[in-house]
Amino acid sequence: MPKSSLTAPRLFNVDCKLSYTLLDDTHFLFLVHALDGMDQEVVEESLRVTPAVESVLHTDAVHGHRTLRFKAGAGPLTLRYRARVRLLRDAPDLRAKEWPIEQLPHEVLADLMPTRYCESDRLGSAATRMFGSLEPGHARVQAVCDWIHDNIEYRIGSSDTTTTACDVFLQRSGVCRDFAHLGVAFCRALNIPARLAVGYARFDEPPPDFHAVLEAFLGGQWVLFDPTRMTEPQDLVRIAHGRDAGDVAFATLFGPVRTRLIRPEVEQVRARRARR
Amino acid sequence: MPKSSLTAPRLFNVDCKLSYTLLDDTHFLFLVHALDGMDQEVVEESLRVTPAVESVLHTDAVHGHRTLRFKAGAGPLTLRYRARVRLLRDAPDLRAKEWPIEQLPHEVLADLMPTRYCESDRLGSAATRMFGSLEPGHARVQAVCDWIHDNIEYRIGSSDTTTTACDVFLQRSGVCRDFAHLGVAFCRALNIPARLAVGYARFDEPPPDFHAVLEAFLGGQWVLFDPTRMTEPQDLVRIAHGRDAGDVAFATLFGPVRTRLIRPEVEQVRARRARR
Amino acid sequence: MPKSSLTAPRLFNVDCKLSYTLLDDTHFLFLVHALDGMDQEVVEESLRVTPAVESVLHTDAVHGHRTLRFKAGAGPLTLRYRARVRLLRDAPDLRAKEWPIEQLPHEVLADLMPTRYCESDRLGSAATRMFGSLEPGHARVQAVCDWIHDNIEYRIGSSDTTTTACDVFLQRSGVCRDFAHLGVAFCRALNIPARLAVGYARFDEPPPDFHAVLEAFLGGQWVLFDPTRMTEPQDLVRIAHGRDAGDVAFATLFGPVRTRLIRPEVEQVRARRARR
Amino acid sequence: MPKSSLTAPRLFNVDCKLSYTLLDDTHFLFLVHALDGMDQEVVEESLRVTPAVESVLHTDAVHGHRTLRFKAGAGPLTLRYRARVRLLRDAPDLRAKEWPIEQLPHEVLADLMPTRYCESDRLGSAATRMFGSLEPGHARVQAVCDWIHDNIEYRIGSSDTTTTACDVFLQRSGVCRDFAHLGVAFCRALNIPARLAVGYARFDEPPPDFHAVLEAFLGGQWVLFDPTRMTEPQDLVRIAHGRDAGDVAFATLFGPVRTRLIRPEVEQVRARRARR
Repeated sequence: MPKSSLTAPRLFNVDCKLSYTLLDDTHFLFLVHALDGMDQEVVEESLRVTPAVESVLHTDAVHGHRTLRFKAGAGPLTLRYRARVRLLRDAPDLRAKEWPIEQLPHEVLADLMPTRYCESDRLGSAATRMFGSLEPGHARVQAVCDWIHDNIEYRIGSSDTTTTACDVFLQRSGVCRDFAHLGVAFCRALNIPARLAVGYARFDEPPPDFHAVLEAFLGGQWVLFDPTRMTEPQDLVRIAHGRDAGDVAFATLFGPVRTRLIRPEVEQVRARRARR
Repeated sequence: MPKSSLTAPRLFNVDCKLSYTLLDDTHFLFLVHALDGMDQEVVEESLRVTPAVESVLHTDAVHGHRTLRFKAGAGPLTLRYRARVRLLRDAPDLRAKEWPIEQLPHEVLADLMPTRYCESDRLGSAATRMFGSLEPGHARVQAVCDWIHDNIEYRIGSSDTTTTACDVFLQRSGVCRDFAHLGVAFCRALNIPARLAVGYARFDEPPPDFHAVLEAFLGGQWVLFDPTRMTEPQDLVRIAHGRDAGDVAFATLFGPVRTRLIRPEVEQVRARRARR
Repeated sequence: MPKSSLTAPRLFNVDCKLSYTLLDDTHFLFLVHALDGMDQEVVEESLRVTPAVESVLHTDAVHGHRTLRFKAGAGPLTLRYRARVRLLRDAPDLRAKEWPIEQLPHEVLADLMPTRYCESDRLGSAATRMFGSLEPGHARVQAVCDWIHDNIEYRIGSSDTTTTACDVFLQRSGVCRDFAHLGVAFCRALNIPARLAVGYARFDEPPPDFHAVLEAFLGGQWVLFDPTRMTEPQDLVRIAHGRDAGDVAFATLFGPVRTRLIRPEVEQVRARRARR
Repeated sequence: MPKSSLTAPRLFNVDCKLSYTLLDDTHFLFLVHALDGMDQEVVEESLRVTPAVESVLHTDAVHGHRTLRFKAGAGPLTLRYRARVRLLRDAPDLRAKEWPIEQLPHEVLADLMPTRYCESDRLGSAATRMFGSLEPGHARVQAVCDWIHDNIEYRIGSSDTTTTACDVFLQRSGVCRDFAHLGVAFCRALNIPARLAVGYARFDEPPPDFHAVLEAFLGGQWVLFDPTRMTEPQDLVRIAHGRDAGDVAFATLFGPVRTRLIRPEVEQVRARRARR
């Protein structure tokens, strides 16, 4: 049955450049490849690592995430990933319902459980008091995101890799992943499966950076929300999704490394050829 | 200059019984003596420790708190403290103002600082967002207490001796000292000196227990508030006040002890002789 | 190539009884089925839920874990799972080596990362200082387990569902899952993939309970360690393994429930028929 | 009875310069005046605040700490404090004993209790396991300091104003106040009264900074220890002591301020006139 709200496919160009100085042999895991599946297609892509290395691209059997893995020696290292990606994403159904637990598919049950950065158990009482009496469905997740937008200050440097949803709720500041973590925790506390989606997004203001948003399971599908309101969530070029940021780091380094440049850019292709 | 709102002095009878079984030599510090000073007078009092011990009653030079200190050997130990106390406390001035920092007496500045159980620094942004735009003064502290009453569940067993204001704000439950700690932290974050006051209070429901309330510095004096709404704060028979619960434990034990009974009772004397 | 250390297969009988009183409709997830795969085989098994419910048994495509899922109404509920399980587990290779990161299979990389209960990042410096200079390999993981055994007190009630490896390291007490979490965190901090394995184990002392142990990736395979020394880890009848306890709860309940009985028993079958 | 180990008095010159840019009216509390009492004497001193402000110097009745307090308007602000201080401190008695609790003077009992930055309760088991069986006395406190020196890395930037002894014990890094906090917590857990002492110290390496060390109550008096081993603790020119850093901040600011310079220098006067 066709949906009435089908959005025309849109085309995006990704250009991601990462530069490092390795102080010694380093083993890398990069999660920068656009997801080729779900609600998007990779039309074309290229990857160049300089100096050249022998690498493996591992595709996750369940989610389709692609992890690039290699070892490199001391010295400069640059990675450039470019892709053209078609988004087939529907406009979100604003009337989408929350599903009762017994109807949830087994695959999303893990997204109901507390995780390191999304302690839905510890935030359960607060979530219930704040959002428990709202009408279930898309509007309730939107209300969660609105509350986060209105009460959490976006401030670079106010959080670090150990900052959790509880910390954000206390300190009332954070960056995109913190906003998303808090939203995920609130949703799970309300028995709405929720997870973190990361990818390439066009921000209202530079600089370009990897983005993290909240994805909630509503009406039988995953729906993107951006509690920072800094991007249009429907335009996210997905890289991966996970239970929290611990699952979807764009770079994992085993070795002494200095980061020189992180510049993940994305642009919508506005020309005629963007139409199918 | 006489205040228009002078309350008639009221008389209270305190009867506090504590029982322990000592498994070995134990050193005790008890903070159970009613404060004789500030806005109350001890009319008469008696103390009996069974079996008899050699004890010292130390009076704090600054605050007047009285700490009973002794060592006792293995076996049962019972302490009974009885007192008749006259409260000279004025009804609170509902128009009392917050004083700017430069007008605060030096002695209350420490009550502006974060402490272990009242992390006003970590709760600063939340407090400012929630209460920062309210009219300063007695009504603002009352609004803080109202929020706590409406949003924190009183539940025995939901907290322990390591629970702090941040924990209470997250978990949305606690007992009297937790309610007071959260109020103290919010007040300090708003630059209102605040501290914990502990003593004997008559609860709407049994069992009797030591009580902890919030005390805020307004209009140049300390004003009592009870965010649990379980007692009339003006009727608290003070034992002590401190920056947080760490300063004012009613019993500190150095040794292996089983607690058998904690029964701190208080009754207002309603007879004619309660009048001066 | 045959291994010299092959252990004769051993047969175990599992008898697990769980009883609850449901105060309202409740959705259950039970992870009690013995794993049929890896280094063990389920020879026969039976499950009975009383009163009878319509249930689904979901088998995880990656790990083979089997989750029983059903909804039940208010009233008593009893689950009984019985199984005969053959362990095909080799005796551990005491000379097994740690593998360098570049040789690790992709599937175990997630077991190098910090998780909620195993904060290997926060414990990284301590682990390096305590165990970093030891000879890598089986003996180093054993040294980690020995340290835990010698320095952490096994004390029921000293931890709860929010207790993490960091907490255990600080408070120096916990139960089996806490011991395992700390070991997992230390191993990961040393770049040894590690995870939690849960199942049925025979304790030196009653009562029977579900058990959690540490599993480290050594010499290309998963090796079981029990830092509590309360069971023989090679005799664990596996139910599941996960990154930490958050992945492998034996029961997850969505609803108001009183637990009446948890009695997961296991016995080795000593008769002749235990031999193949 | 004269002590055999009397040290000749030593003379130190303090020169402390602090510079700020105030973005708006700011209320300041400065704790920079050398203590004139205990085991040192202020021979002469001068204070200049530029631009000139009306200030109050408050002397604490119990400890003798002197707090400078004033309000200043937007613009640059510089404070310069210079003093000549004579230390009358004895060399520490290496045979000094720990006193049993019942012999401790009432004034030091508060220094046995856990505080925000020195959670001796949470570190109690670890302290007992690590140091509980050592011979009580000066050597045991020295063993605590040695352990800290050997196991905690001095690293500027590894901690912040919320870092506690538990954090330091976990992360194994910190700066002088973190080293001292951990030592204080361990001592209190062993029933040795301990506190933080802050002041002017000559570091082996620049830059000059305020210093914090541990002070333990041994043999009836306070004895200084520096677990960082970066200074000679007997040469500390005291400013103040407190239960932890929360009590003895050198500057407390109520207002928006940029810090431009913190340069607290101290030099021992080596000339003949240093002798009495």
